[in-house]
Amino acid sequence: MKRIIRVNARTGSITEQMATPEEHRIGGRHFIAHVLNTEVPPTCEPLGRYNKLIISLGLFADTGMSTTGQLSIGGKSPLTGGIKESNTGGYAGRRIINLGIKTIIVEDLPDNDLTRVLYVSNDKMELIEMCDLKHKPVSETFSILRDRFGLKAGLICIGPAGEMKMHAAGVASVDDSGTQVRYAGRGGMGALMGSKGIKAIVVNDDQPVQPEFHDPELLKKTIKEITKALLEDPKSKNRKLYGTLDILDMANTIGIVPTRNFSEGSFEPCKEMTGPKFAALVKERGGYGRSGTPCVPGCTIQCSNVFPDKNGNKIVASLQYESLALLGPNLGISSIDIIAELNHLCNEVGVDSIETGAALGVAMEAGVYAFGDEAGAKDMIRQIGQGTVLGRILGQGVAFTGQAFGVRRVPAVKGQAMPAYDPRALKGNGVTYVTSPMGADHTAGNAFETIRTNNPLGTENQVYNSRQLQVRGAILDTMGVCLFTRPAFVQNPKLLINLFKAKFGRDISFEEIRYLGAEVLDLERKFNERAGVSEKFRPIPEFMREEPLPPNNTVFDISQKELEGIWDVPVRTDAF
Amino acid sequence: MKRIIRVNARTGSITEQMATPEEHRIGGRHFIAHVLNTEVPPTCEPLGRYNKLIISLGLFADTGMSTTGQLSIGGKSPLTGGIKESNTGGYAGRRIINLGIKTIIVEDLPDNDLTRVLYVSNDKMELIEMCDLKHKPVSETFSILRDRFGLKAGLICIGPAGEMKMHAAGVASVDDSGTQVRYAGRGGMGALMGSKGIKAIVVNDDQPVQPEFHDPELLKKTIKEITKALLEDPKSKNRKLYGTLDILDMANTIGIVPTRNFSEGSFEPCKEMTGPKFAALVKERGGYGRSGTPCVPGCTIQCSNVFPDKNGNKIVASLQYESLALLGPNLGISSIDIIAELNHLCNEVGVDSIETGAALGVAMEAGVYAFGDEAGAKDMIRQIGQGTVLGRILGQGVAFTGQAFGVRRVPAVKGQAMPAYDPRALKGNGVTYVTSPMGADHTAGNAFETIRTNNPLGTENQVYNSRQLQVRGAILDTMGVCLFTRPAFVQNPKLLINLFKAKFGRDISFEEIRYLGAEVLDLERKFNERAGVSEKFRPIPEFMREEPLPPNNTVFDISQKELEGIWDVPVRTDAF
Repeated sequence: MKRIIRVNARTGSITEQMATPEEHRIGGRHFIAHVLNTEVPPTCEPLGRYNKLIISLGLFADTGMSTTGQLSIGGKSPLTGGIKESNTGGYAGRRIINLGIKTIIVEDLPDNDLTRVLYVSNDKMELIEMCDLKHKPVSETFSILRDRFGLKAGLICIGPAGEMKMHAAGVASVDDSGTQVRYAGRGGMGALMGSKGIKAIVVNDDQPVQPEFHDPELLKKTIKEITKALLEDPKSKNRKLYGTLDILDMANTIGIVPTRNFSEGSFEPCKEMTGPKFAALVKERGGYGRSGTPCVPGCTIQCSNVFPDKNGNKIVASLQYESLALLGPNLGISSIDIIAELNHLCNEVGVDSIETGAALGVAMEAGVYAFGDEAGAKDMIRQIGQGTVLGRILGQGVAFTGQAFGVRRVPAVKGQAMPAYDPRALKGNGVTYVTSPMGADHTAGNAFETIRTNNPLGTENQVYNSRQLQVRGAILDTMGVCLFTRPAFVQNPKLLINLFKAKFGRDISFEEIRYLGAEVLDLERKFNERAGVSEKFRPIPEFMREEPLPPNNTVFDISQKELEGIWDVPVRTDAF
Repeated sequence: MKRIIRVNARTGSITEQMATPEEHRIGGRHFIAHVLNTEVPPTCEPLGRYNKLIISLGLFADTGMSTTGQLSIGGKSPLTGGIKESNTGGYAGRRIINLGIKTIIVEDLPDNDLTRVLYVSNDKMELIEMCDLKHKPVSETFSILRDRFGLKAGLICIGPAGEMKMHAAGVASVDDSGTQVRYAGRGGMGALMGSKGIKAIVVNDDQPVQPEFHDPELLKKTIKEITKALLEDPKSKNRKLYGTLDILDMANTIGIVPTRNFSEGSFEPCKEMTGPKFAALVKERGGYGRSGTPCVPGCTIQCSNVFPDKNGNKIVASLQYESLALLGPNLGISSIDIIAELNHLCNEVGVDSIETGAALGVAMEAGVYAFGDEAGAKDMIRQIGQGTVLGRILGQGVAFTGQAFGVRRVPAVKGQAMPAYDPRALKGNGVTYVTSPMGADHTAGNAFETIRTNNPLGTENQVYNSRQLQVRGAILDTMGVCLFTRPAFVQNPKLLINLFKAKFGRDISFEEIRYLGAEVLDLERKFNERAGVSEKFRPIPEFMREEPLPPNNTVFDISQKELEGIWDVPVRTDAF
């Protein structure tokens, strides 16, 4: 997995180089930070000639361990103005890995408005003009590509939103059957891909490359242990049974579910929306409905689902907690079928469901439609895809929508919408939103898992916890595995050491692994500081310091000074 | 002129304090920088509770010297995210001065959506709810206020754009007859005023306060000399005869007139649009038409006009070069009557004609309407006033419009539209646009006046010249006089020294006066650096470094490094 592919979107040239030994030791999110710091001017225009779209595989992507196969997609974010790494499942990642490709870097801009497909196989790489894909929704795009390139092609694409360079646009991936549509949703990576004139990437791994491991036996043994740990972990079991939808009930109980544009932290109908009830509903409806399905081949956690309608036909796959909360309670909508449909519409149009749910919430506060207006919500997402004037506002995300309509209550940090954990009642996440180089992004360090050990309403330990979680997240994103694998490593950090040893023959201590995570964050901060979007300049929204959040009636009250001090917090090296 | 009025827009309280001796020595733009640096958190939300609207009179505002009476309006700009001072003529300034008021500072935000008038007189200051003004265009607002408060009330107001907190909104002022409408247009000060729930300010100076001067005789003598110098200066004479419209011909000849969204530097029809021809047309049409009228009482330069239609009725007053270029050639429109009408519409809606002309140019590039579509241009400005969805995009200015429509060619720096001097062929202005704390603002340091002594297409001396011009501009904006008074001081810098001596009894050397200008810029940069919007992070738009500008086919090629070095350029103290 040493091949680095460079595509010049202007000249059309595609070149290949092999990773240097140094580059071989960095992967995924880390590699994105490396490329941005060495090749991309921090103050460049995110949709201009000097930004790069980077598709990067993690360090252990080729090991076949559970959850590998996910892709990190990065570049300078048009949404935040800073560095971005957004990762996603789907089957294309596995196929890229199978070709021994570590990274695909797309550079420069085309001169004209083009709709092209980047075709990647072992013996041929080319940019193919495919005008018939222009402005096609995501499912139709995948369908056309499958017709042309076969059922086993690995597929990634953008929707019309990305083609229109809307900042809320994500990059979609899919499984072989076209059922599970997953998103590298955050940070506007779809707009970045759209700016390069690339509608889709097709990967053919008919001629796979054999991966090389320093100690295949140790690797096999370690992966087996990881799988075992995950299968036995109660949280992972829960995820398979109920998916991330199970979060809703607890989040509602502790009062952090964004409700009607973050004006409340709980939503009465949520009481009826528990994980087990969802799972039972999926089972009861039957048909194509599924709980506990993987999003990458071979994943043992299997938190995804196929959410069916009353006739058993798929509405969306997968419905996850963030989308549910932002497109449901945040819009005052309680019908699970409608929420699933809104999520599907976001997937079709090609926009991040978090950013879009937040933008619609602000639009509803502005009175574009009333909270709870299901038809209105659908209309707004459809208009994004159509590129109507209203759609061109909403498709740019929550901060843009707030500015257009003169709404002051904008739940965003660094121009990016907050996910479904209101930081006034889960203060650790406020710390992450402000200090993470990724902006408001729960995957960068989600304090939700600390609520049993640390009072989420208090200010104590929040900065400390966020720091440790951010380091952990950076490690997992660099390894190329899902955040949900963490229980295995928390339980037995030795597994991490063995992975490095087995794949690279690298003797690395647990302490060094933790510092690796810190180093990734340092690199990212360095880029953001030079881009002018460090936490110094991007505080929590003022209304969250002023307006108490029911039912706890707390505000976000961790001082900006304490937030900025996060980088002085020592990196914990005695636990993952 | 020592009264400082503080209005709390939340509580409605209005308090008064007297300037300290230190505060008495700083005025206008300098005072705005002082308040922002001491009272406003640099990272606050521009339309939030912690920003302040500052209306500030210059150091010599009460001397009656030519052009005094103009107001500096400032705060943290919603458009640029940095400090802003925008000044304007009109009659309200004179009345504020007559009350001995140095500054009005509006703080905090109202809880509800209010339409209020701030009434200021010697014995009474209050916030008056006037719902009948809600969303009224500017001329009607002034008319209603004149009906209620009398013909001699000094008036300032915002249009519907400011009420809707659109970032392109300016603050309008007017003369006693309601003819000349002037704008503190740049930087979104209208949105800031709108966020405070203040639709208008009414000043009654029935009970004036006598100004105090250290040496009234010296002051009288100095002002006389200034007036004489201005009356004899050929440039000033020219301004009276032809107004700033006279710039167009020369600007077109050297190829810097923004044409069809800054894609060319000259526009064929401009050859027919010379200053003398305009003046002749105004004269020929007669009626209410006027050339050579003042915008503040007592101005001897009188660069304003009343532009009449074929029947002699006013279309707009005053039509100036910037508006003419941005609403004319930049939109591919050559009819002077249409341009005047577009300018009038901007004035009615309450938006900066520069920002709006640039936004319309980008919208035309995106195909919202074609270049040259006169009806389309009118429709777009009307839609801003109506707050339609399209209007809400355009009213936010050029950068926002570019983002909404995915247009990469956005002529802006720090989020603010460039005025009518393309920096690819007048490179000194590019230096000013990037390095001025004000963003793309020609009044901050206009290299147009150097074109006879320095090649505008070359890179030599541009940074040096911009530095000196910026210092000069900061001094004049601090004094509270128009930039057009500069010939008097260039000719005889001693006049400046005498002004300080006569008014304040202050023995100040010319060198110290130049350093005062540099100090103002330093204060402003300090604020911007803490707000994260210094020139380090806001370079010239990339297309201006790539795309040669016809007819000279030059790009902007002064290096970012040289631009950032501007603050190391010594301040010239041997000339103004």
